[in-house]
Amino acid sequence: MDFGFDAKTEELRERLLTFMDECVYPAEEAFEAQAAESGWASPPLLEDLKDEARRRGLWNLFLPGEHGAGLTNLQYAPLAEIMGRSPRIAPTATNCAAPDTGNMEVLSMFGDEWQRKEWLEPLLRGEIRSAFAMTEPDVASSDATNISLSIVRDGDEYVINGRKWFASGAMNPNCRILIVMGKTDPEAPSHRQQSMVLVPRDTPGMDIRRGMHVFGYTDGDHGGHAEIGFTDVRVPADHLIGEEGGGFAIAQARLGPGRIHHCMRLIGMAERAVELMCARALSRSTFGRPIAQQGVVQDWIAESRVRIEQLRLLVLKTAWLMDTVGNRGAHTEIQAIKIATPRDVEWIIDKAIQVHGAGGVSQDFPLAGLWAGARSLRLADGPDEVHKRSLAYRELKKHMGDRS
Amino acid sequence: MDFGFDAKTEELRERLLTFMDECVYPAEEAFEAQAAESGWASPPLLEDLKDEARRRGLWNLFLPGEHGAGLTNLQYAPLAEIMGRSPRIAPTATNCAAPDTGNMEVLSMFGDEWQRKEWLEPLLRGEIRSAFAMTEPDVASSDATNISLSIVRDGDEYVINGRKWFASGAMNPNCRILIVMGKTDPEAPSHRQQSMVLVPRDTPGMDIRRGMHVFGYTDGDHGGHAEIGFTDVRVPADHLIGEEGGGFAIAQARLGPGRIHHCMRLIGMAERAVELMCARALSRSTFGRPIAQQGVVQDWIAESRVRIEQLRLLVLKTAWLMDTVGNRGAHTEIQAIKIATPRDVEWIIDKAIQVHGAGGVSQDFPLAGLWAGARSLRLADGPDEVHKRSLAYRELKKHMGDRS
Amino acid sequence: MDFGFDAKTEELRERLLTFMDECVYPAEEAFEAQAAESGWASPPLLEDLKDEARRRGLWNLFLPGEHGAGLTNLQYAPLAEIMGRSPRIAPTATNCAAPDTGNMEVLSMFGDEWQRKEWLEPLLRGEIRSAFAMTEPDVASSDATNISLSIVRDGDEYVINGRKWFASGAMNPNCRILIVMGKTDPEAPSHRQQSMVLVPRDTPGMDIRRGMHVFGYTDGDHGGHAEIGFTDVRVPADHLIGEEGGGFAIAQARLGPGRIHHCMRLIGMAERAVELMCARALSRSTFGRPIAQQGVVQDWIAESRVRIEQLRLLVLKTAWLMDTVGNRGAHTEIQAIKIATPRDVEWIIDKAIQVHGAGGVSQDFPLAGLWAGARSLRLADGPDEVHKRSLAYRELKKHMGDRS
Amino acid sequence: MDFGFDAKTEELRERLLTFMDECVYPAEEAFEAQAAESGWASPPLLEDLKDEARRRGLWNLFLPGEHGAGLTNLQYAPLAEIMGRSPRIAPTATNCAAPDTGNMEVLSMFGDEWQRKEWLEPLLRGEIRSAFAMTEPDVASSDATNISLSIVRDGDEYVINGRKWFASGAMNPNCRILIVMGKTDPEAPSHRQQSMVLVPRDTPGMDIRRGMHVFGYTDGDHGGHAEIGFTDVRVPADHLIGEEGGGFAIAQARLGPGRIHHCMRLIGMAERAVELMCARALSRSTFGRPIAQQGVVQDWIAESRVRIEQLRLLVLKTAWLMDTVGNRGAHTEIQAIKIATPRDVEWIIDKAIQVHGAGGVSQDFPLAGLWAGARSLRLADGPDEVHKRSLAYRELKKHMGDRS
Repeated sequence: MDFGFDAKTEELRERLLTFMDECVYPAEEAFEAQAAESGWASPPLLEDLKDEARRRGLWNLFLPGEHGAGLTNLQYAPLAEIMGRSPRIAPTATNCAAPDTGNMEVLSMFGDEWQRKEWLEPLLRGEIRSAFAMTEPDVASSDATNISLSIVRDGDEYVINGRKWFASGAMNPNCRILIVMGKTDPEAPSHRQQSMVLVPRDTPGMDIRRGMHVFGYTDGDHGGHAEIGFTDVRVPADHLIGEEGGGFAIAQARLGPGRIHHCMRLIGMAERAVELMCARALSRSTFGRPIAQQGVVQDWIAESRVRIEQLRLLVLKTAWLMDTVGNRGAHTEIQAIKIATPRDVEWIIDKAIQVHGAGGVSQDFPLAGLWAGARSLRLADGPDEVHKRSLAYRELKKHMGDRS
Repeated sequence: MDFGFDAKTEELRERLLTFMDECVYPAEEAFEAQAAESGWASPPLLEDLKDEARRRGLWNLFLPGEHGAGLTNLQYAPLAEIMGRSPRIAPTATNCAAPDTGNMEVLSMFGDEWQRKEWLEPLLRGEIRSAFAMTEPDVASSDATNISLSIVRDGDEYVINGRKWFASGAMNPNCRILIVMGKTDPEAPSHRQQSMVLVPRDTPGMDIRRGMHVFGYTDGDHGGHAEIGFTDVRVPADHLIGEEGGGFAIAQARLGPGRIHHCMRLIGMAERAVELMCARALSRSTFGRPIAQQGVVQDWIAESRVRIEQLRLLVLKTAWLMDTVGNRGAHTEIQAIKIATPRDVEWIIDKAIQVHGAGGVSQDFPLAGLWAGARSLRLADGPDEVHKRSLAYRELKKHMGDRS
Repeated sequence: MDFGFDAKTEELRERLLTFMDECVYPAEEAFEAQAAESGWASPPLLEDLKDEARRRGLWNLFLPGEHGAGLTNLQYAPLAEIMGRSPRIAPTATNCAAPDTGNMEVLSMFGDEWQRKEWLEPLLRGEIRSAFAMTEPDVASSDATNISLSIVRDGDEYVINGRKWFASGAMNPNCRILIVMGKTDPEAPSHRQQSMVLVPRDTPGMDIRRGMHVFGYTDGDHGGHAEIGFTDVRVPADHLIGEEGGGFAIAQARLGPGRIHHCMRLIGMAERAVELMCARALSRSTFGRPIAQQGVVQDWIAESRVRIEQLRLLVLKTAWLMDTVGNRGAHTEIQAIKIATPRDVEWIIDKAIQVHGAGGVSQDFPLAGLWAGARSLRLADGPDEVHKRSLAYRELKKHMGDRS
Repeated sequence: MDFGFDAKTEELRERLLTFMDECVYPAEEAFEAQAAESGWASPPLLEDLKDEARRRGLWNLFLPGEHGAGLTNLQYAPLAEIMGRSPRIAPTATNCAAPDTGNMEVLSMFGDEWQRKEWLEPLLRGEIRSAFAMTEPDVASSDATNISLSIVRDGDEYVINGRKWFASGAMNPNCRILIVMGKTDPEAPSHRQQSMVLVPRDTPGMDIRRGMHVFGYTDGDHGGHAEIGFTDVRVPADHLIGEEGGGFAIAQARLGPGRIHHCMRLIGMAERAVELMCARALSRSTFGRPIAQQGVVQDWIAESRVRIEQLRLLVLKTAWLMDTVGNRGAHTEIQAIKIATPRDVEWIIDKAIQVHGAGGVSQDFPLAGLWAGARSLRLADGPDEVHKRSLAYRELKKHMGDRS
């Protein structure tokens, strides 16, 4: 047992921290100003940052194997944490932003040669963006069997009908391709009903209706969260990813690394919040002494530190398990990080907001935006409660033999 | 001891509930659509609703005494709760919306005849809006002695310099008057340093810079939350409310009823959230059964009901105390409702959001907006922690004699 | 709506507070010493206190109607709170201690003339004690249909077989009578299967095996919590209370007032804990200043006050509802107080313990004992979770019509 | 980074798990019976278990270096966890029970040859027991400068006067030696005022007055928690451990490993509680289905698993830090585990109790006893709040430079 990072990780951490200090944090103010103007497009300064990250060898770090940087989950995790400290800039600047990351993983693992050439390559080069359409407005999508968008084979094509929402990134004009999950065979066993198809954003019949808000945010700089109607949308049959009925398995494969990334970024967000909380507490006074001397604020700071340390270790162990025994062997831990991380980070950011007073909820500090991000991750890919129930079943199963 | 409402209250509750059913809820969808277009102005349909409320005798219910409906705090409280069920429409429609309510109370209690004629009367008629400028960006404003905006007497005028923010309502073009709190005498005893002056919105030197956001929301339909710069702003000396050095006392007087109103509206918001939570839980299914049958969801619903009942009783008792022994005698309770209500209502709305899945954080349900409102009330007029500390001091004082 | 006590209540509160100050608190130390010696019997000094309470007209206050003091639930509730401040002495001293109170209520409401003469009268005079045997070790007793003790009519007798535990008071040698709940007809509709019978403590075949502990406490001064085996225990048929199949209804009738009493006593315990917490915080110093100046301790004190005020109002309203619309109409509130009170009071006592350091968990302060009492009330007459589920069903039912 | 145990640890874990299964769990029932009879002495069956553990090479595992098993903190930690699953038997059976462990560490590190021969050796052989007297009834002992027991050099002797309590183990008749902390020089710098002396249990003037209770438990099988009066107690000068003024430093050195041991045992207790909770939930039914199918119970089980995983990782990392950078470098983590572990384990055990109904608080299950142990560790060696404050100061210090 060894809690130190390996040399490669240490080196990349250093390099990335330097990039954050030299390029990312200094760009935050200008980013906000551009974001306020750029509608659904990415703020233009990101292009320079992407060039810079590429030059510094900080590119596609998330992607294992030959197409990416080839890091293990355990090596990438601490880098994702660092990116999370400026979550609207750093992931995009290093081409490590969701949902592109998950989509690149899918194409890398399940895409055929043509699909990889057509879509994976420009994504890897950071030339285009992509979206992932799974959640539906009309059903509780945490139960995959509820998915109702229909994908029907018709000759050499698939015909798609239905409605999706919260397809993050799809409002971005530079988004060129969507991975869409739907049902090809409602009669198949429940986990063989779904398939995934690639749908170019300009396909007729696909109506990108509006961006859903998250609290009051449109997340425009991130390409928003689109509601999309599909009316007789037709794509050639070779746009199917993997095989018919393979959608659920692909979704599961996509999910493990996604959780690690999300959770480590959240931890980075929490570290940022603690930093802001401490700085504010040291700089403001009430009733004659700095807020930092108030016991309740100290309690929040200590509590935040204790929680962060525990979260980080749990996510790192999960990454290690995925690397050593695979996603299936890490099932409990993958659920555990999803349960623990968003809610604890939300708690920490909430306290940082409280220390900031009215400013904390405003656009003058990143805290309210970070909070909204953490809060929505308590819902993204299934509310916590679904994961808790599933984790409890596995725990109970261990003890089934104990019954007399 | 009697927990029933009196006849007058029951009658007004009935009348108001009917107004909600017949006029307010049906207007919500159109209100959202207009609000999305109306910038910082009120959605136009409010004018019709105001006429209707006036016709139905549901006007200025908040105001005790001769200028208003003459209700006690205990009589008005349950009406404020009902308004809180549609908090962006009902309070404005009945001319019971903050910050106008507090401003009208101040003018009614402390304004001179000219001030009342000039500003109170059009406010009472619902012709103009007003704002209240107390919080400052540069200091922890929960400690009133930190207030740094300067108000200096110069001949027949007061000259104002400084900066305020979160002056709610001030972005509304129909806002005509601001009540501004500042320091007239930094050398006086700490609670005699502050004064309040009336500043017409078009006074030269007053720069209404921008609207502050609250978790991404601009609250445009409410007139936003303005940041305002004051540079040598001059108002005639008769724009002083009450006497020099009386600002702190006026703020305190304004605060008691304000708390009752805010807290009762929050309880109405919580009831709305529970309604939405139950309806959603009954209508969605996962894994073969309605969400309403899930134990954790039932736990949230029960917990919400238990908390709401307790909050309502505490606020009503506080109102009763204010009516019977005055604000000073109700000090502990006024702080207690401020501590308990926003955080518990926030908790309830959070759970309702969770039951709604991704929809819960979006613009398709009122929940995320309600949440942001409740969250920001944990900060408004001082973070909870300040009130807890003060309440604890009073509790400890009771036991000082016990020491040996 | 009126939050003041009526004159009768005020008078009795004064009288009882005086009794507490003059007789109860001064007896606490001697009580502990006697309790350490008296095994399962009541400490002898209680007899003097009972005489004194009787003399002062503070006797059987809990019992409405002709046999008792004739108070309403709302009048008695604040008196129960005061007794709760010294919960091992005051209720017994005033003949208002569970389970005798519930048993007297049952006999008063459902007992026939002979039963009342034989058992109710000596109980009312405080000459004997009694016990109530409902919970069973082998089943989840919160579901009454699980009750498995069998009561079979055989000629002029009932024959009882089965096992009970946590029959509070039954270890006391002065306990003369038990009310035992069991099944007379397992084939009847689920709420008509149970009956209650009176079983004198010396009936052959009834084996009072041992006292169950509560976090290490035997509660010996209270008569313990007995495990009892019933082997062919025979009682004459006239020992049946009410009618066969009426057991569930009697249990329900017994339960409403019992909740009020328990919850108000808990609130008294919480007040005692706050008092001790404040006194300790003022008298101990760490790192150069009194613990009372530590923000976290202040937070606990404020939080305790806020919670107590809410709990008290909720219990009082419940009492008022029971008085005005009956137990059935107060169903939601009766469950709500059971859910909210024990857990919040437990929280408060826990904080008082923490302020006391190691002493807090020891026999030198009443806190650990109070805590164990509050904790076990989260389980007594059904774990909180059962009540939450039931309350949620009723809440959901209100919204069933909303489904589309 | 590697989350697997090393080979030696794995081998010892296997061996210890076998010992638990073959010897410890089967002895639990008899242990309880003997403990109920044995007063302040250890239940006699422990001697056999000690022989067996010694034979199996499971002896003094806690002690690093030549005198013990020579394990690192990281190697011992998972063994302590396993022992914690039966915390009243396994630690004693393997001679790894507090406070002997800490005392042996102190003697091993700071004792001179004579002290080691006289006291360490019989302790290592498990022939005698020992106690540690630090906490005082009259002051908040979490602030070491408050310690008031006086140790005065008088010729060749030290004269001790004062009072201690919660000296765990000191009631045991086989306890032969106490390590006593007191002040030798009240004028020295605050952390050089204290010294530690060895006081044989039969020294005249030392009055072992009574055992303090923990909730209702005496912890008799553990030797209780003694209150001790010291009146002119004289020990030869060579009974001083280390040097005069070195008491605080010794206490600090004793504390790091003690925390690891306590916290890992707590985690073992939590695992035991989860096991019992699952078994009970599977075996009991209410309202027609096993408690295990209730959502709230599942939530508790999942939550317990998630918290345990996080706690274990944090404690293991702390052990690793102590091994690699020393106690000082692990300061934050040592505080963090003290803050997080007792309270989370307390929460888990509380939920297991709740699932057991009334049985959970009784002597029929180990849960109430485990709970009392966890609860008192929120106070032992300083209440959590002291550690949080200290941790917060260090966190704030990191950001002191950020102030502008």
